This record gives sequence, structure tokens and C-alpha cells, in this order.
Amino acid sequence: MRKPAARPRAASRAGAGSIPERYARTRSATVALAAPLSAEDCAIQSMADASPVKWHLAHTTWFFETFVLSPRGVAPFDPAYRTLFNSYYVSVGDRHPRPQRGLLSRPSLDEVLAYRAHVDEAMARLLDAGSLDPAGLALVELGVNHEQQHQELILTDVKHMLSCNPLRPAYRKTWPLTAVHASPSRWIPVAGGVREIGHAGAGFAFDNEMPRHRVLIEDFEIASHPVTHGDFLRFIEAGAYRRPELWLSAGWDAVLARGWEAPAYWERRDGEWQTFTLHGMAPVEPNAPVCHVSFYEAEAYARWAGARLPTEAEWEIATAATPIEGNFLESAMLHPLAPREDPGDGALAQVFGDVWEWTRSDYAPYPGYRPAEGAVGEYNGKFMANQYVLRGGSCATPASHIRATYRNFFPADARWQFSGLRLARDVA
Amino acid sequence: MRKPAARPRAASRAGAGSIPERYARTRSATVALAAPLSAEDCAIQSMADASPVKWHLAHTTWFFETFVLSPRGVAPFDPAYRTLFNSYYVSVGDRHPRPQRGLLSRPSLDEVLAYRAHVDEAMARLLDAGSLDPAGLALVELGVNHEQQHQELILTDVKHMLSCNPLRPAYRKTWPLTAVHASPSRWIPVAGGVREIGHAGAGFAFDNEMPRHRVLIEDFEIASHPVTHGDFLRFIEAGAYRRPELWLSAGWDAVLARGWEAPAYWERRDGEWQTFTLHGMAPVEPNAPVCHVSFYEAEAYARWAGARLPTEAEWEIATAATPIEGNFLESAMLHPLAPREDPGDGALAQVFGDVWEWTRSDYAPYPGYRPAEGAVGEYNGKFMANQYVLRGGSCATPASHIRATYRNFFPADARWQFSGLRLARDVA
Amino acid sequence: MRKPAARPRAASRAGAGSIPERYARTRSATVALAAPLSAEDCAIQSMADASPVKWHLAHTTWFFETFVLSPRGVAPFDPAYRTLFNSYYVSVGDRHPRPQRGLLSRPSLDEVLAYRAHVDEAMARLLDAGSLDPAGLALVELGVNHEQQHQELILTDVKHMLSCNPLRPAYRKTWPLTAVHASPSRWIPVAGGVREIGHAGAGFAFDNEMPRHRVLIEDFEIASHPVTHGDFLRFIEAGAYRRPELWLSAGWDAVLARGWEAPAYWERRDGEWQTFTLHGMAPVEPNAPVCHVSFYEAEAYARWAGARLPTEAEWEIATAATPIEGNFLESAMLHPLAPREDPGDGALAQVFGDVWEWTRSDYAPYPGYRPAEGAVGEYNGKFMANQYVLRGGSCATPASHIRATYRNFFPADARWQFSGLRLARDVA
Amino acid sequence: MRKPAARPRAASRAGAGSIPERYARTRSATVALAAPLSAEDCAIQSMADASPVKWHLAHTTWFFETFVLSPRGVAPFDPAYRTLFNSYYVSVGDRHPRPQRGLLSRPSLDEVLAYRAHVDEAMARLLDAGSLDPAGLALVELGVNHEQQHQELILTDVKHMLSCNPLRPAYRKTWPLTAVHASPSRWIPVAGGVREIGHAGAGFAFDNEMPRHRVLIEDFEIASHPVTHGDFLRFIEAGAYRRPELWLSAGWDAVLARGWEAPAYWERRDGEWQTFTLHGMAPVEPNAPVCHVSFYEAEAYARWAGARLPTEAEWEIATAATPIEGNFLESAMLHPLAPREDPGDGALAQVFGDVWEWTRSDYAPYPGYRPAEGAVGEYNGKFMANQYVLRGGSCATPASHIRATYRNFFPADARWQFSGLRLARDVA
Repeated sequence: MRKPAARPRAASRAGAGSIPERYARTRSATVALAAPLSAEDCAIQSMADASPVKWHLAHTTWFFETFVLSPRGVAPFDPAYRTLFNSYYVSVGDRHPRPQRGLLSRPSLDEVLAYRAHVDEAMARLLDAGSLDPAGLALVELGVNHEQQHQELILTDVKHMLSCNPLRPAYRKTWPLTAVHASPSRWIPVAGGVREIGHAGAGFAFDNEMPRHRVLIEDFEIASHPVTHGDFLRFIEAGAYRRPELWLSAGWDAVLARGWEAPAYWERRDGEWQTFTLHGMAPVEPNAPVCHVSFYEAEAYARWAGARLPTEAEWEIATAATPIEGNFLESAMLHPLAPREDPGDGALAQVFGDVWEWTRSDYAPYPGYRPAEGAVGEYNGKFMANQYVLRGGSCATPASHIRATYRNFFPADARWQFSGLRLARDVA
Repeated sequence: MRKPAARPRAASRAGAGSIPERYARTRSATVALAAPLSAEDCAIQSMADASPVKWHLAHTTWFFETFVLSPRGVAPFDPAYRTLFNSYYVSVGDRHPRPQRGLLSRPSLDEVLAYRAHVDEAMARLLDAGSLDPAGLALVELGVNHEQQHQELILTDVKHMLSCNPLRPAYRKTWPLTAVHASPSRWIPVAGGVREIGHAGAGFAFDNEMPRHRVLIEDFEIASHPVTHGDFLRFIEAGAYRRPELWLSAGWDAVLARGWEAPAYWERRDGEWQTFTLHGMAPVEPNAPVCHVSFYEAEAYARWAGARLPTEAEWEIATAATPIEGNFLESAMLHPLAPREDPGDGALAQVFGDVWEWTRSDYAPYPGYRPAEGAVGEYNGKFMANQYVLRGGSCATPASHIRATYRNFFPADARWQFSGLRLARDVA
Repeated sequence: MRKPAARPRAASRAGAGSIPERYARTRSATVALAAPLSAEDCAIQSMADASPVKWHLAHTTWFFETFVLSPRGVAPFDPAYRTLFNSYYVSVGDRHPRPQRGLLSRPSLDEVLAYRAHVDEAMARLLDAGSLDPAGLALVELGVNHEQQHQELILTDVKHMLSCNPLRPAYRKTWPLTAVHASPSRWIPVAGGVREIGHAGAGFAFDNEMPRHRVLIEDFEIASHPVTHGDFLRFIEAGAYRRPELWLSAGWDAVLARGWEAPAYWERRDGEWQTFTLHGMAPVEPNAPVCHVSFYEAEAYARWAGARLPTEAEWEIATAATPIEGNFLESAMLHPLAPREDPGDGALAQVFGDVWEWTRSDYAPYPGYRPAEGAVGEYNGKFMANQYVLRGGSCATPASHIRATYRNFFPADARWQFSGLRLARDVA
Repeated sequence: MRKPAARPRAASRAGAGSIPERYARTRSATVALAAPLSAEDCAIQSMADASPVKWHLAHTTWFFETFVLSPRGVAPFDPAYRTLFNSYYVSVGDRHPRPQRGLLSRPSLDEVLAYRAHVDEAMARLLDAGSLDPAGLALVELGVNHEQQHQELILTDVKHMLSCNPLRPAYRKTWPLTAVHASPSRWIPVAGGVREIGHAGAGFAFDNEMPRHRVLIEDFEIASHPVTHGDFLRFIEAGAYRRPELWLSAGWDAVLARGWEAPAYWERRDGEWQTFTLHGMAPVEPNAPVCHVSFYEAEAYARWAGARLPTEAEWEIATAATPIEGNFLESAMLHPLAPREDPGDGALAQVFGDVWEWTRSDYAPYPGYRPAEGAVGEYNGKFMANQYVLRGGSCATPASHIRATYRNFFPADARWQFSGLRLARDVA
């Protein structure tokens, strides 16, 4: 078991501190993420799924202005921003089309940073006055969590953008990774039965994690470790990307249509696999968790390995007792790492941080799910179709953002997130 | 309650009779479906999702030739057909690309019917000799059920093809429908608990219905009747196709991208909604179940109505006691009808036949699911991604093909099947 | 020089005979082209550029009904056909979308043939009565020439459709081609100066061939023979399809985007080039004119050969004295052939028939061009953009349809016509 | 006639001065164009046809490095730039794909400006030493003219990019335009005959303007003035964008597919037409030349007006005597203006500058055309397909860049250049 001494990040969790403190800490963390980037880096959109960093900086600010400041009579910084930086909130009005976010050279990065400062000042006045009603405070809490999600997207989107540049430039030039020893995975049995999953209690959670509810699972086993690069190399070397029988039909279509022959960002150079990281090109480390795989690749890998993906209920039940610590955004590694020590008998390694883990579950409402009221109710429920759930957070997730009940979701072909997998299997 | 006298179709269920009898009956039923069609009608493919009738006639034959006759040494009718009429069985070898099935004027319809006769003769010899091993008999059973699925597709695909013709020609000119009185829907309570769903026992079922397994459901209520055209007209008149807040995000994208403003096949003529049927254009009958709606439309309707779609487990548990009778292919109505009598207190109307009912469940493997061995194992499991489950069969489903455990599945935007919905809701 | 005895086809030219005779001869020739085809063959559309044979049969009939019969009070055979079989005549009203012509299983081929018979009968009455005004007679003449164009398209479109079938079925099974000896090409000098091109005089010509007008050309040389398969094989073997420097930029884009590595219909089988013909697959005959090449391929070939394509003015002036004889539709070869005899000193071989010859000229109005009046004025002038002129007719062109002044036109990437080339070069 | 006093720009023509002077002047003019833009403005690519300003700055520099410095042994600034900033020169090696030029946040604008300074320094050394051979000097001349072309593209591309921003930001905020009086167009007769067009003599011209050669034209008339906004408004008000009979078939397809209902950049605001300019939104000035129309719109306008477009030979002959003066880039108007004075009897107004004028001529090689040797030979001839010729330069063209023989070319649907038209007509 990891000892408390090994958990320096616990102290920095956003859960700690008052709302005004958490607001301030989160807002400045976002700006810090943009610090290594030029105005040009922040302006470009490399695909429709991704957004420019500048847009993330503005949209997270728009959230507080639209949902907290405007209803309380604070005049907008610039009325045009209401449309420009709306993401998908239909009830708030028009939106600038998502695939055209990269066409906005104006407002400039400097103007967007001024927008942030302006809103932060108004928010500070509001928060310091202590006059904010509970509904308002709940919106601030939601906005902080919303902004943390965009912190992760800033990193995954800028990684994709930089990867499109033939120069393969680094977000950060330092390369902090050190070689490690293998820590082989074991099967951990989990007892079935009627159990509970989902969020309950006082802490913040998104509406999609609620209500806490009963589920029935059967006995199963889960892998102590995520699948590693070394594991996945054997899958590739077994010809998996040329063997349709290993894939879902839609997955095989994706392999052919997009010419996949390895995870995203992998390149074969001089006969060796390398991968693009936020530190530039790097050799594939065999003991680190495999990353940037789609649901289709995760599912095919599991089939090839004679196992399967866990459901999200299985994942949540199996990991319920695992402390929330790991390689998060705050470690500044910005890349999944190999485990530094063995988790010990019966314990799971790298559950939180490093890589999001695909589950076999589609993203659907929990029994009794009710979306939040008003425009913020468009936040989560709108996307409950054709997406699969990922769990556990990644090396780009703020430590204070993740929970065992946290449900991330992406389409089955998405690969630009830090997405990996952990195997499960039925008990014979 | 419906009385036995009201169930004339029960006698004609394919479950009745020996395998040779069922084989012969199913094979001739398929040819009968093509009888009203010209060679031209049978050659055309109107979209990539649909296939020409001639292809269905040949592919169902190919199934028996490839999986039953060839392994037992029977020479192929024409070796080229092995590729031409393979659907997606990767392990069987090359396939003619699906969107190009409509480019095959040769072999002619006559040649394909000769192919059918040739294979039927060889199959009859094999079946009459009684020498077929149990694995062979199981493949014949699978082939009969496979062919029944294509019987339904022949009708839905030819309906789509005819609808593309500005003349809106009929498949059958007779119009058997008569006006009916409304039978209002009631909420039927269903008790929750740990229950079982899925297939077990001796009768035929597809691999995706197995294994029978435990599920946990909570108390809920289900509508006694499917949603009707009249119900859906109110949804349209409430401006639903212009109100994004009623839709899943992906559903709203589909509404905009495809210009949906009513179910498929509806046309506004002289201020009145009509719909294209296999009998030609007809007025929209308010008491008949709504049909040709996508999962997105079903889901939005339920939200607008203050309810939700049932999960497939809820659907199966709620309908477990319902007798399998209704408006099936054998009724020759070829269109969903209004109920002729009230089902009685606590009973569900129109569970089977008329329209497939969308559920809230994505199409996923049951716990412990194992695909069938060999090439036929590609049958069902390959498609377990990005599809939603429909239950109950339709007016185009052979009566003997449907079961309470039967899982049909289509993508969330599919509308050319006879797809409708039944509401469910949580107990407050 | 070819002797008059070698020109048996001259007698059958449509120019011969009265208008009623030419009408009757042309109409029955069209039906004869469909005789080897089944109703299925006639219903299918293999690409948006091509039309089903049934549509050609109906549309040519629609022309006479719409422009000759209807204005003279003859009731339409079926009012719906006015829209269904309109090609692009905007002033006539709505049109069935071109890419959806292959979705029409109804009217059936039999009904379309009945439509033809009905219109032919009404036309015969009108023509026999001798009461048709000169404008009406001119429209009949135009309709006959229009139908001859569609005779060629019936063959090129059905060839494309059959080529999409992996069985590579033949339109006609007989293979009439015999081996021949090479007849090497020579450079023929043509004197420049102010000359005249275009149509003048009494015979029929399309509006785009008029007015006859002066052009200035410089001295040049033209090849006595079209480029042959043998010539083109050397181009392929020189790696031309992998050498961007030989191509126009748009041509190279087409090579890459469509994976061209030889003319259309060529397939490499057992190390040998074969080509799909209306008689099925056949070896590539080195002495026959190369065929089914795009403007881009023709232009690149010419560059590689150190020559260029002629302009249409050069072509017309160089061929003005050449008798109109050759391998036309009436020869029933349905494929370009090698020359049977040398044309003699200073004479050009295979100018007419065999293959259309791409020129360097875009399809533009002649100085003083005036489109015909009324709806038929949409016939030619509407297409004067982004097309290149071809001259001389092909093995699928009716002999009586072609003239030295005849201007055919297709986009630079079209390959499904019988299109080849003849080289020209500047005088040093 | 305009007096010399009215031609202040003549002095600044690049033709004046030595090659080193012209090199220096052109290079600094390019940088000056980028001065009002931020690094973000310079990084974004708004469509595949356009390039980021930063790419233009780098590519024009690449030209001198690749064709002048590298062959003379000067080490490259950065070897990666050889691929990154190659446009289409296949013989120079790989190219970064054109539609992905907007994905390059690195090198930064500062680095690109450093690249420019580095190459300028090396070029200055070479030019000052006077050691450059004639071939080298010719390449410098070509490079200067090449860079002038990109100066115009910088403006048209940045205009398109800014227009995509809902804020409609200005490139320059000043609005220098003043109201003017109408100067009505007259028909100017031009005598036909055998004439000469094309470039000959000592001054610079592109290879596509050569050789000077004889053409035959007939008597015709040309409009003294370009078509104005006021003229074009009448075309719009006549319903032209809803009347297919006015359009080429391909033009009408473009109208429907792209929803055109006015020239590019026009917006109807409060019932009045405004247009986006490099100074922001402005009312449509009726007396200024119409601009941002495609060839299709120009051609349709001419048909509606009972006239036609001139051929490029007609245009060149009619304008041969017109002095090269007008509203060019150096005027800093950056928008077409209404004429300030009447040109006088028999003279043509606004021939040069203001707007490029579409001709009826496709972009084809002149008789005897030979591309330049080596990689620079890919400059012009590669594009001689599916493009139409424009003449006369625009308000974004450097004054010293234009000639009466100058041939610009764009596809028939391009609208983002400053493209207008001048009418011609046959003599009855």
C-alpha cells in the first residue's frame, strides 16, 4: 500500500478550501496552462472535435459571466462574447459554430486574458461580499468543475494541434520521465451482488453521477494494472490491425477508413515505435499504460487477450476503496507513467490518474436521473447517446476534479484524450 | 383480455413443425414476398443501408449453401456467388461492397430464383435423408431464422425504394385498413426486484439473447399502448422539431442535418399529413401506433411527454406474460394498425407485432455472452456498438420469428424500419 | 486512299431519306440497342454521370412529346412523365434529380416501350399528314439528332454499369475483333492562315457549331493516326502515372484522388493488361486506338511524347477533306479497332469513328453564337464551362450523326466515353 | 484623358530602379502589409483556397532561398522550411498539404520575420557583390514578381479570414472612401482584324504571357466602364439569383449549392445591402465597380444585360493604348472606388486597378508556349485547365506588377479575389 507520505497531491485537492479559494486557484491554474504557449498556439483549431486554447480560456469565463454575473446585473464585458463563446447551451441563444472556432483571430489572446481578469474581479467582489445565495454558490462550484474539465481539454487539444505540425514541437521541452521496472498485472477477484454506485452526499458531483442507486453485478475479476504499451505492442505484433475477426464491425470500419495501425500519435521511426508527447517525440515506454486508444481498440485488445472491458458499475465497485492519488495534472508529468511501486496484494494500481479507462458501458442516464434545472441542465444529459464511459482521470486531470463516481464519456472512435484500458473477466 | 379465439396466427408459428417443414415453409414465404415485384423492382438499391430484393433472395440462399451444403461436399451453384452474396462474414472471404449491391443487374432475378431452387433441392435431399448431424440441424435452424429477418428487410427495403419514386407506387394496391375507435393508454405498474431476462431452454434463440441472467430493476410503470400517430401529431404541433431543448444533442444535429420535421414517409399534402405505405399514400390514422421514427425522435417524444423509454430489461419483464400474438407479416396488413379491442385491465396492448419499440438500452453483450463458434459467430456480436435495442416485432415480422427475449438493434438515426415506441416512467 | 467501295455505310447515313424515314429509322435503332438487355440491365444507374437505359429510352421520347406533340394539342401519355423524364430543361418545369434516375423501378421497361410506341404512333400521324410547319420539322430533326446522342450514351452507360459487376458480363457475347498489323503514324503538315470553321449551309447542325467563322491558325503538323494502345503502354511503362511533372496540376490531383494507373476499364490479370469491352474482358490490342482516357491523360501523354493536343480549329481544318467513314455504331463492332489499311501519303486515318479525339480547346461559344429559341435553347449553350471539346465520333456514334464540324464536350476527368487522342505539334 | 498630374503612382512602379532596389522595396512592402496584423491574424487559414499570412511571408522567402541562395551554396536557415513552405513545386520535393497550412503555430511569426531578415541579408550580399549571373538575376526578378502576387493574396486571404469572424473586424479602421457622381458607361467600338497579343521585348513578363502571337478578332464593342454595384443591384432585383435561365448549368448548380444571392461579402442589414471590406462593414456604393463575383455571376450578368464577356484577346487589344494607372495597392484604398473623372470620348475607364475583370477565355497556353526551364517551370503552365482568365489588376495589385498582357486566372466559382467585369458585345 502506498503510504501517506507518497501522496503529496492530496493536500492540493480543490475539495480543500472555501469556494472563493477554489475559484481563485482554478482560474489561475488555467492561465498557467496557457503560459508556455504563444498567441498563435492559442488561436489554432486542429480539428472539429478540438477547440483553440483561446476559446477554452474565454468559454470558461463566459460560463461565470453568463450564469453567475449576468443574472445578478453585472454588465457584460462585451455583448458579442455571449454568442462567440457559447459552446452548446441552446437556451442561452446563438452559438458560433464549433468547427469555426479556429477562425477567430479576434478577440486577441490579450483581450481574452483581459476578459478573464475583468470577470475574475467581478466574481471576487461577489464572493468576497459573501452575498451569493446558495444557488449562486452551487453555480460557482459547477463553474469551477467545468473549468477543470477544460483544463484537461486545453492539454489534449493543444497536443493534437502540435502533433499536426511536421516539426512536432513540444508544449514543454523538459522530459521528466525515467525508466522503471515492470510491475506485472494480477487478476483481483470482486464479489458480486446487489451493490450501490453513483454519487450521494454533500460533496460536489455532476448531475450524471446521480442518483446513487442499486445495481446487480456478478462475481468477476479485474486486472490490478492498466494495459501497458508493452502489452499493446504484442497485440500490434500479432497483426491485430489486419485481423477483422478481432474487431467490432464498426471498429474494423474505422481501422480501414482511417488507416489505423497503432494508437494515436505513434510513429515508426527507424524501425522503432515512438510517440508524440507534450514534451515532443519520445520512445514508447513498455511499462507505461497504453494511451490514446479508441474504445474500438480497447475492446479489440480485450477480445484478443481473452478478456473483456469492465462495465462502469464493475469498475466503480472494484475501485471504491482505492485512495484517489496518482499521476494527475499537478504532477506536471503530462504523460502516463509506469508505476513506481507495486500496489500490494489485492490492491489496484494506477486507478486514478495516468489514463482514463474505457468501460464497456454506454453513457446513459442512471435510473431516476434528473438533469439540473435551467440552461446548465444542458450540461450532461444532452450527450447521452453514442458515447462510452471512461473512468479514473488521467495525467491531464486536476487531482481535485476526479472521484470514484466520475463519468467521463467520448465517442467510440475518439483517440485524442489520454484514454487507455484495464481488463476484466468473468469468473469461470 | 384477448381470448384464444382471437389468436388465429398462433397456429401458424414456425415453431410448429419439423425443421424440414419449417425450412420449406420459410423458403417459399420469401419467394412469395417477391411475387408482386418485377425484376426491376428487385434489382434496385435505394440507399446504402438497404439492399435490393434480389440480393436478399440470393444472400439467404448463400447462407445455406455456404454453411450447410459446401462443408458437406455439395458443389456450388456458381463459385462467383460466394463473394457476390456474402454480407459481412469476414472469415468466409471477400465480399461485394454493400453500397454496390444495386449495381448487379446480373445474375438476373430468374437466375437467382434458379439458384434458390437448386439449393432448396439439395437441402431437401439432405434433410429428407435424415443424415444431418445436430450441428448441421442447428445451422438450418439458424438459417431459417436468418431468412425470416431478411423477409422483414425485403419489405422495409422495398418500401424505401418505392418511396423514392415520385409516383409513390404501391407494393400491394389493396388497402385493408378500416377506421377504428381510440383505445386510450393507461399506466401499468411493474414491481421491481432482482429478476431474470434472456433466453434459456430448448427453443431457438440467437446468441445475443443469451445467457439468461439476473438483473435488478426498480418499480416502474409502463404504458398499456404504444404511442399513436395522434399522440405524435400533438408533439409535432407543439413545435417539437424546432425546439432543441427537447432533443439529445446528437438528435438535434440529425434534425437539422436531414431536415426532419415528421416521421419518415410523412408528407404534407393539401394541409393534411399523409404517409407512404406499402399500399401507396394514405392518410395518417390517429389511433394507429406511430411508426418510422428514429431513436432520437422516440427519446425526444418521451421527454416532451414527461416520461422516458423503458430499458430492455424493463420491457422484457413487463411483457413476459403477454401472449405472442398481433399484427405480423402473416396478417398481410403490412402496416401498423389501431388496436381492435382493449387489452383489459393491467394488460398490455400491441406488445408484439405492429411496430418495433425502441428501448433506452444500447445493444451490448449480456453478462457471460459468448458468440457462436465459427463464421456464424460473426452474426450478432460484431454489431454491439452504437446501436439501440428494439423489442416486440412489427407488422413485417414473421409471427414465428419473434420472442419476448428477442433483441433487434439499429443505429439511433435509423427510420426505415417499422419502429415506434412505448413509454415508461419512474414511480414517484 | 480508301476507295468509295470501302464506304458501305455512307448509304445508311441519316442524312439520306425524308424526315419521317429518318425519324422511324432512328427510333427503331434505339430500341434495337436495348434488345440484348434485360429489364434489370435497363433499370440500374451506376454513377451520377450515367443514366439507366430505360431513362434514355423514355427521355428521348419525352423530347418529341414535349416539344412537338404537346404544343400541337396531343394529350400526354402520362402527365407524371413530364417531370420524370425531363433532363435539364429548366423552362419545361421540374426535373427528377439526375443522381436518382436509378431509383425508378416504375414505370417498367414494358411501360416505357409502350410510351415509345404511343408517341411514335402520334408522331407518325403528324408526319404522314404532312401538316407539320417548318419549325415543327426542325424540332423533329433536332429530336432525331438528340436521340442519336443518347444511342451513344446508352452504350457507354451500360458499359460502365456492366463493368461494375464483378462478373464482368458482356453486352454482346460475340467477339468480332481480329488481329491486325501495325500502321505507323506519320506527321502531316497543315498550312496556317486565316481559315473558316463551323457549320454553314442547309444540312442539320447543332447551334453550337454555328456560325461558321474565320479563325487564324499557324502552320502545324498533325499525326496521321490516333495514339494506340501500344503507344500508351509505353507511357505507362515509363512510369507516367507516378510522375507529377508530366501532368497538369488538376490532372495529377485526379491521378492521386482516384488511384488511376491506366485508362478506364483496364485490369492487370496475370501480369497482362486486359480491358473491359461490351463483349466482356479482352486483351489490350496494341494497334487499336487508345480509349477511355480523360483529357488529363491525353494532355499528359502528349507532353510526354514531346507533342501537344490540337486545338479544335486545327483539328477541323486538318480533317476538312477527310471522307466521313469509319468504325461507327452501325458496324456493330462496339469497340475501337486497329486500321485495316494505310490511309496513304498525306491522308489521315481513323479521323471519324473508333474514338472521340480530345482537343486542347475548352468548350466555348463561337464568335456570334446565338442559342436556339425557347426551351430547346437550353440544349448546348448551358454547358459552356469547364468542358473540353472532342471531335470525330466513335465506334458508338451513329454514322449519320457525325460531321467534321461536330463538337462533343466532356469534363476533363471524364473517362467512360470512347475517348482517345491524336497528337499535333508546332512547326519548329 | 487623364493628365500626367493625375498619375502620381507611375513613379513608384517597380519597373523603376535596379533589381536590388526593386528587391528591397518589394520585400519591405510585404512586411508592411502584415504590420496591422497580430500574430494570431497571421496564423489562421480560413479555407483551403486561402493561406495564412505567415505562410505567405515565409513562402515568398522560401522562393529566394530555394531558387537563388541554395544553388549558390548558402546554407538554409532551417532545413525543415524546405518542405513546410513549398507550395506546389513537385520537383523541389515534399510539400506540407495546402489545407493544413493553418495548423502551423510554429514557426512563430517572429521566427518567420527572422527568416525573412536572414534571407534578405544573404540576398543583399549576393546582389551587392554584383556577382549574380543573368540566370540568377532573372530568378530574382521572377521572385520579386512572385512576391507581388502574394502581396495581393495576403490582402484577399486576410479579408476572407476576417469576414469569417462574426465581429467583422477591420484590417484598417480608417475608411477613406467618399461619395462620387455617376459616370455612365458607353460602348466603345474596336476594329477587328489580325492583331497581336502577348508579351515581347525586354521587360519582365511571366512565361504564360508569351510568345507574342497573331490572333484574329472581329469588330466588337467594349464598355467604357466596368459594371458597377448599381448595375448589379438591378440584376439582383430582377430576381437573377432565382432565374436558372440566366445561368450556365454549372453556374446555376453553384448558386443552389452555395446559396448565393449576392456577391461575396454582401449582407442584408436592416433592408440595405452592406459589404465587408478591409475597413469593416460598409454600405454598397452604387457607382463603384462590382466586386467579388465569380465567373458564373459575371457571365450571367452579361447575358441578362444583353451583352457578353470579352475574350482575353479582345480585352488586350481594346486596352493596349490605355495608360497603366488606377487604384492599386499603393493607393492604400484597399477597395474598388467609383471613377473620379470621366475618361473622355473613346477612352476606357478603370481598366487597370480597382477590380480584375473576368474574360470569356479559359486559361490555355498561347500558340508556341514553352514553360520556363527547371522547377520554376511549374509556375504557370501547370494550372492551364478549368480556370478562366482575368485581366487588369485590382486595388490589391501592386502598380508595378500589372501589364496589359498580364494573365491572371481563377476557377469559375472563385469569389474571394477582387473580381469584377466589363461588358462587350458583337457589332450587329
